[in-house]
Amino acid sequence: MIKANDPNLHSWITIAPDCEFPIQNLPFGIFKAGFKDPRVGVAIGEYVLDLYALSQFGYFEEVNIPDHTVLFRDTLNAFIALGKPVWRQTRERVSELLRNDNGEFRDNEEAVRECLIKRSEVEMLMPVRVPNYTDFYSSIEHATNVGMMFRDPANALLPNWKHLPVGYHGRASSITVSGTDVIRPNGQTKVGDNAPTFGPTKELDFELEVAFITGRETQLGSTVTPDEAEDYIFGMVLFNDWSARDMQRWEYVPLGPFLAKNFASTISPWVVTLDALEPFRVAGPEQEPAVLPYLQYSGNKNLDINLEVLLKPEGGQETTICRSNYKYMYWNMNQQLAHQTSNGCNLQIGDMYASGTISGKDETSYGSMLELTWKGTKPLQLPDGSERKFINDGDTVTMRGYAEKNGIRIGFGDCTAKVLPAL
Amino acid sequence: MIKANDPNLHSWITIAPDCEFPIQNLPFGIFKAGFKDPRVGVAIGEYVLDLYALSQFGYFEEVNIPDHTVLFRDTLNAFIALGKPVWRQTRERVSELLRNDNGEFRDNEEAVRECLIKRSEVEMLMPVRVPNYTDFYSSIEHATNVGMMFRDPANALLPNWKHLPVGYHGRASSITVSGTDVIRPNGQTKVGDNAPTFGPTKELDFELEVAFITGRETQLGSTVTPDEAEDYIFGMVLFNDWSARDMQRWEYVPLGPFLAKNFASTISPWVVTLDALEPFRVAGPEQEPAVLPYLQYSGNKNLDINLEVLLKPEGGQETTICRSNYKYMYWNMNQQLAHQTSNGCNLQIGDMYASGTISGKDETSYGSMLELTWKGTKPLQLPDGSERKFINDGDTVTMRGYAEKNGIRIGFGDCTAKVLPAL
Repeated sequence: MIKANDPNLHSWITIAPDCEFPIQNLPFGIFKAGFKDPRVGVAIGEYVLDLYALSQFGYFEEVNIPDHTVLFRDTLNAFIALGKPVWRQTRERVSELLRNDNGEFRDNEEAVRECLIKRSEVEMLMPVRVPNYTDFYSSIEHATNVGMMFRDPANALLPNWKHLPVGYHGRASSITVSGTDVIRPNGQTKVGDNAPTFGPTKELDFELEVAFITGRETQLGSTVTPDEAEDYIFGMVLFNDWSARDMQRWEYVPLGPFLAKNFASTISPWVVTLDALEPFRVAGPEQEPAVLPYLQYSGNKNLDINLEVLLKPEGGQETTICRSNYKYMYWNMNQQLAHQTSNGCNLQIGDMYASGTISGKDETSYGSMLELTWKGTKPLQLPDGSERKFINDGDTVTMRGYAEKNGIRIGFGDCTAKVLPAL
Repeated sequence: MIKANDPNLHSWITIAPDCEFPIQNLPFGIFKAGFKDPRVGVAIGEYVLDLYALSQFGYFEEVNIPDHTVLFRDTLNAFIALGKPVWRQTRERVSELLRNDNGEFRDNEEAVRECLIKRSEVEMLMPVRVPNYTDFYSSIEHATNVGMMFRDPANALLPNWKHLPVGYHGRASSITVSGTDVIRPNGQTKVGDNAPTFGPTKELDFELEVAFITGRETQLGSTVTPDEAEDYIFGMVLFNDWSARDMQRWEYVPLGPFLAKNFASTISPWVVTLDALEPFRVAGPEQEPAVLPYLQYSGNKNLDINLEVLLKPEGGQETTICRSNYKYMYWNMNQQLAHQTSNGCNLQIGDMYASGTISGKDETSYGSMLELTWKGTKPLQLPDGSERKFINDGDTVTMRGYAEKNGIRIGFGDCTAKVLPAL
């Protein structure tokens, strides 16, 4: 077992029950406190630990970071580029410093004052610069629901779906961190036989997804097998793949979604390492027909991560509208990465690979309004008496995710965004 | 008229007839000479002009470049970020220094020795770091040909095609500069009722395209109108969108091409500025039905650029297999950029926007093997007696492009790549 994952570890920092950031998590992010320049931080309880300041106090001398200024950047990319042994060593060292039986940092009043900042007092920034972004389509329940609504209910899954993890390239520039407002996009839509029109989307939707971030680059022509994939993955975030359904319907043939998706995606601010998620591995669904050898894997590659979506109307009350789980995925991330590289496509550090909408079997586990309201035919009833077919201006959509075992909860921090009216 | 475009200008450097790099061109690129670090250069005749060295000799004092080390980088992005007035001023200054009636640089032997390097002696690198890459589908002849082959010959164009410039996001990481070999990709394909198999593509193809590169960023929510688009475009390159047709057919529904495209794209090394291409503006085809207001433009937005594709078998003779022209485009780049931003999608510096395959009406002007051989049913006959349905291992594909008027030829440099066998 990875030492920092020991469920018996306790920190000298008080961790509230149900807190997503116990000593067993220690996710990485980029934060800004007051007028100080952005830097690398780790979430612990109600605090951010300033890793750059910590390094200045000499606490990382035994960690193999040749140049500590990689911790004094506005993205994690340079830190990630140091490689998996360094991410792991850094997390282990932070764990050691925060352990309740270790006084070396705890008892240094000046260091504690400089290095621990309340999370409520910092601004979280995009954790990585994203050179490439792929969105997969790997939930069989989601793909089936969409196929039933838009194509043939009797043959909802397209012929390729069970043979390869369908995916497409998305827009990297418009991925924003939790807390960034989303402006309702304008776009072309077409209703029935009318001529197409241009204006604000009438069918703004979210998609509940989880994304992994690569931490190791490859050269053109190189491949990564499913069983090697973990060496290339730094960590994970929650991902809201905002979508405009009416625009998507009109534009997406034959080359796929474009403006219906690329106006915004929202991610959670903390990158939870694969190391921290290791205790939550579970078996995935059986894949039948058997997949081709380049997609075969060994061991448990799915992760048991509870997911939920909450909707809060302007000035109203927050309501949970979806509860799903990342373990439902038909195609796991190891297969996704193997497929992505199977043709020699090269990976870069900070690439983001999103799962596709994660829906379960149950109607309350559907990961989009499209599915929850079945194309708007079954509107959701909200506590304030209003109903929703899609997302309204002023609505705030929040995604939460956590893995839990032995009373320890490993979470991501909220992935939240408010919708502003179209310009 | 832009001063540097004057057809009566002559340089003290000898320019061969038909040379693509006369004093009226002056495209920007990144080059590496011997053991020296990469830097910004401008092509002139048979030479590269080292702009960083030129700045060290003091020749850019009147150009508004606050920090000359932007010329001493391995991409053009930092230089481009200085803005259009600076690109223009730099090109005008280089033009002035190379003019046959100006001795200030010509007569400085040491400067000439340091700053002018034979193009045959340098290695050209990727000119830009590409944060986002979009591929459009804007040739009506190409879209019609593909629709006839793969869908319904009587309704070859899909209903959205004449209402919006269809496009999709591609992979930025695998865009490489001319001269980089392309490895035949492995991938999943499916023939008839057989189970899918994994192996080298049997239908490797090129796509003849031209791409523009953005030089000005926008914020999320901002839009760019067709008439403003030129202020956001730095320049253009030739673009080979390598494609594996058998993989594409199997994978592309419903989310578009993915592994069939992202194993490699090849670009020409020199970025030809919009300024240099200004004299070659022509009217585009009439758009009927009329487009929505956000896609309407004024003036001539098409460019008359001759394009050709040459095929050279291993050890064999180079043959021209296609002659096309960028002026055939139904949707122009101003409309493409307006569409891309119409939903508020933000632009970044170095983004690449490719045209889609540029085919003309004539069968010899088709910009892909798919069309030239009509899905392989009419193989091309090569001078060595062999025939091609698609591209073979060992084949070298070269794209060339130039605009020509008043005896002045503005070219891009070869966009060339050799195909290596699958790994």
